[in-house]
Amino acid sequence: MTHPMTKEDFPVSNIRHFLEPGPIVLVSSQWQAQTNIMTMGWHTVMAFSPSLIGCIIAAGNHSHDLVRNSGECVINIPSTSLVDQVVGIGNCSGSEVDKFKAFELTPGKSEQVGAPLIEECYASLSADCTMTPWLNATTCLSLRS
Amino acid sequence: MTHPMTKEDFPVSNIRHFLEPGPIVLVSSQWQAQTNIMTMGWHTVMAFSPSLIGCIIAAGNHSHDLVRNSGECVINIPSTSLVDQVVGIGNCSGSEVDKFKAFELTPGKSEQVGAPLIEECYASLSADCTMTPWLNATTCLSLRS
Repeated sequence: MTHPMTKEDFPVSNIRHFLEPGPIVLVSSQWQAQTNIMTMGWHTVMAFSPSLIGCIIAAGNHSHDLVRNSGECVINIPSTSLVDQVVGIGNCSGSEVDKFKAFELTPGKSEQVGAPLIEECYASLSADCTMTPWLNATTCLSLRS
Repeated sequence: MTHPMTKEDFPVSNIRHFLEPGPIVLVSSQWQAQTNIMTMGWHTVMAFSPSLIGCIIAAGNHSHDLVRNSGECVINIPSTSLVDQVVGIGNCSGSEVDKFKAFELTPGKSEQVGAPLIEECYASLSADCTMTPWLNATTCLSLRS
């Protein structure tokens, strides 16, 4: 048995607190000699097969150009043992920090893409990336089987 | 201290098990005299302000036409007390079932849109909707402040 709930107004610019608590992932990318890792919470499954993931990688993120130029990335799923790295990676920029070194993470070789996976993560999803003009930020990722 | 993990291949068409466990929401909509509720797990925050949410509402969903025709919906956040309704709503079609009646949920009046909110839910986010041609399914929701 459930009952109607009393509600109050809430600023819509803060509603991410309601919708964000999905899995936080680490996106690793590479363009030429430069690698980066980005903490990302804004993503959604879009289709089963072919497997398609939508991600929001804003133009202001250092990873944006690496993903756009290479057309590839790896979505790495961290376990809770990596919580300090996940928070730290999300609070500094790849323009100033080599994140693999700074956070003592091991770049691994993906069988599918040139971007490195993160060996310490629970799962790694290698993806081809298509940037869309939507918001000048959205990335549509097609996972490689 | 963290260590590299041994990994094995996994079918990419099943990777939603890794990325889906975010908040499951109930999308309520109305077009003319018909209302519906849809259980949805494929969504992401896209921007803070203006508040923008991306959702995947496939053309095969009964809610698709209601949202497209009205240009509106409400994203309702259920609490765990509604788990039976959330599962049930996700396993039948609004083409055959009046979901508000069948699941004993109370349609409430939104101050922002014509679509009904669900009184039993913890939070209700009223939204203008713009359907995009992407996949013939994606809905981009702009929340009303």
